[in-house]
Amino acid sequence: MTPRIALDAMSGDHGPSVIVHAAIKILSEVDDLQLILVGDEAVLKSLLGHRSTKVMQRLSIHHAGQQVEMNESPSRALRNKKDSSMRVAINLVKQGLADACVSAGNTGALMATARYVLKTLPGIARPAIISALPNMQGTCTHVLDLGANVDTTPVHLFQFAVMGTVLAQAVDNLPKPRIGLLNIGQEEIKGNEDVKEAAKLLSHNPSIHYTGFVEGDDIFKGTVDVVVCDGFVGNVSLKTTEGVAKMISHYVKQSFNQNLWTRFAALISLPIIKNLRQKIDPRRYNGASLLGLRGIVIKSHGSADVLSFTYAIKEAIIEVQKNVPEQISHILATLLNGKGRVK
Amino acid sequence: MTPRIALDAMSGDHGPSVIVHAAIKILSEVDDLQLILVGDEAVLKSLLGHRSTKVMQRLSIHHAGQQVEMNESPSRALRNKKDSSMRVAINLVKQGLADACVSAGNTGALMATARYVLKTLPGIARPAIISALPNMQGTCTHVLDLGANVDTTPVHLFQFAVMGTVLAQAVDNLPKPRIGLLNIGQEEIKGNEDVKEAAKLLSHNPSIHYTGFVEGDDIFKGTVDVVVCDGFVGNVSLKTTEGVAKMISHYVKQSFNQNLWTRFAALISLPIIKNLRQKIDPRRYNGASLLGLRGIVIKSHGSADVLSFTYAIKEAIIEVQKNVPEQISHILATLLNGKGRVK
Repeated sequence: MTPRIALDAMSGDHGPSVIVHAAIKILSEVDDLQLILVGDEAVLKSLLGHRSTKVMQRLSIHHAGQQVEMNESPSRALRNKKDSSMRVAINLVKQGLADACVSAGNTGALMATARYVLKTLPGIARPAIISALPNMQGTCTHVLDLGANVDTTPVHLFQFAVMGTVLAQAVDNLPKPRIGLLNIGQEEIKGNEDVKEAAKLLSHNPSIHYTGFVEGDDIFKGTVDVVVCDGFVGNVSLKTTEGVAKMISHYVKQSFNQNLWTRFAALISLPIIKNLRQKIDPRRYNGASLLGLRGIVIKSHGSADVLSFTYAIKEAIIEVQKNVPEQISHILATLLNGKGRVK
Repeated sequence: MTPRIALDAMSGDHGPSVIVHAAIKILSEVDDLQLILVGDEAVLKSLLGHRSTKVMQRLSIHHAGQQVEMNESPSRALRNKKDSSMRVAINLVKQGLADACVSAGNTGALMATARYVLKTLPGIARPAIISALPNMQGTCTHVLDLGANVDTTPVHLFQFAVMGTVLAQAVDNLPKPRIGLLNIGQEEIKGNEDVKEAAKLLSHNPSIHYTGFVEGDDIFKGTVDVVVCDGFVGNVSLKTTEGVAKMISHYVKQSFNQNLWTRFAALISLPIIKNLRQKIDPRRYNGASLLGLRGIVIKSHGSADVLSFTYAIKEAIIEVQKNVPEQISHILATLLNGKGRVK
């Protein structure tokens, strides 16, 4: 079955041009794919121009008259933007006309709309946001929740572990992904009551390969495949990561740009810097999933460029191929039927 | 008044040798300073050897027969290690024989012992750990709490803001340090109930220059001078920072070490890398303060080397000179007497 993916074409900081070009780029790379650009038909048509290449046969436009602003409140978007490109793209998933949707829009509005339209999977109290970060092993570490939930309970954290397990199995082909619970120390006595209680729920559960507490630096050491945490903590950790990386990059540029000699050194080092950037290029890790919904919704970074947005589409393709929501349902049903351990 | 600082000489991953050499180094750099090495007299004497330089007149040894292990539980250390170098160093502060103490030992044990021996300042419910991190402005951002407290209340966060204000005034000579509350968005509706409530306490308070919510990346942008957060969140953010920095450094080394050409480029770039390292060298930011106690206690990173440990001693010197605990008491008393706003 060819994956059909709806793109919220009016989303993102750089407007529809990035998304249209990302769509064309990925269609030329991936044969077995259909894309639907959702947004202002006139704008999208003019951006596509008179291209009549073969890939265009797998690209269609679905009109939507409104768009959600980057700073619009989720409740306002839900109430007033029923014809927004975001809402219509999610509707296409609900109606079975698309297998997934990808948006670079406002995270809060995307989560609220997706939750309202698609609903959560049976047994999931709260959807979560998961994304991959690079680690020293040369693989990646999936982290959830990255900000959809604050004040999570131990049961929510347990459900995040189930969802993270399924995602890492699907995306990285890991039979038994190692799950760590984010804490401020590795000893059992450390942390707040919620993580201690969640640790009890996760221990000895046959469906989850729980390996214990991990700390913030373990995300980048690659100690585990999935790091589970409350959305407040996860979001701070993610933003901290972005902040540190940007600061280091700022000082690297500054240092190589001081005088003629340092600029010469920069020239010599260019291939190395390029190689390095490829390893930890944040664009390669673009595409966070809204997990726990009855449908696949991928959130791209708002500032995504063309290359970056194609990675978000690739994430959607994998999740369609592996049918992630159904897998999550399946494991949860097993657990709820008492074959696992959690009540 | 010459600052007299007690050093927990048996602490740290590398043992007393690092601390003894750091003591000698800083005494040769700072004239107006007395140091007391606390620990096993025989060991310390043999490390000092037969030095008879002038600086040695400002260095003394205070014997302590035990030491706290890096993985020892705080309660065990408190109960069983009454003659540890850590405990004795803190006792010296309590007895007025030292103005501050510096330890590279186990954070939990250090906090528990310092709290037990010195007690908290009037009006402070919980001491907090504060440290400085580099930012893009070329200054530093102070962050607290870094892990002394989990499950903090809005009132605790308010008290952290007071302590952070005093520390930034003392260390950076800032008349009105900008205080930000760490959250997962800058809008008022974002975050959990605790940060929303803390924001109310902080707003319009004449003693605190509160500027609003900040996010994880603001630490490194230098948006504010002090970032206030719960200890769980702060610790995860700090460890995340360390993790990202180590991963980038790992990949930089790997990239420059691939072949003859990249090694040549590394050689050319050496002065630049050195300059860069100096700007964001974590050793320069060593020395976290345990704030809110009736005495000055500085925690050095366990893995500190000689240079790094001298920075922790420098932090102690500044806090002694500026009398940080008394300043915190003073501001809190003003607030408690109703001249400020908080109940």
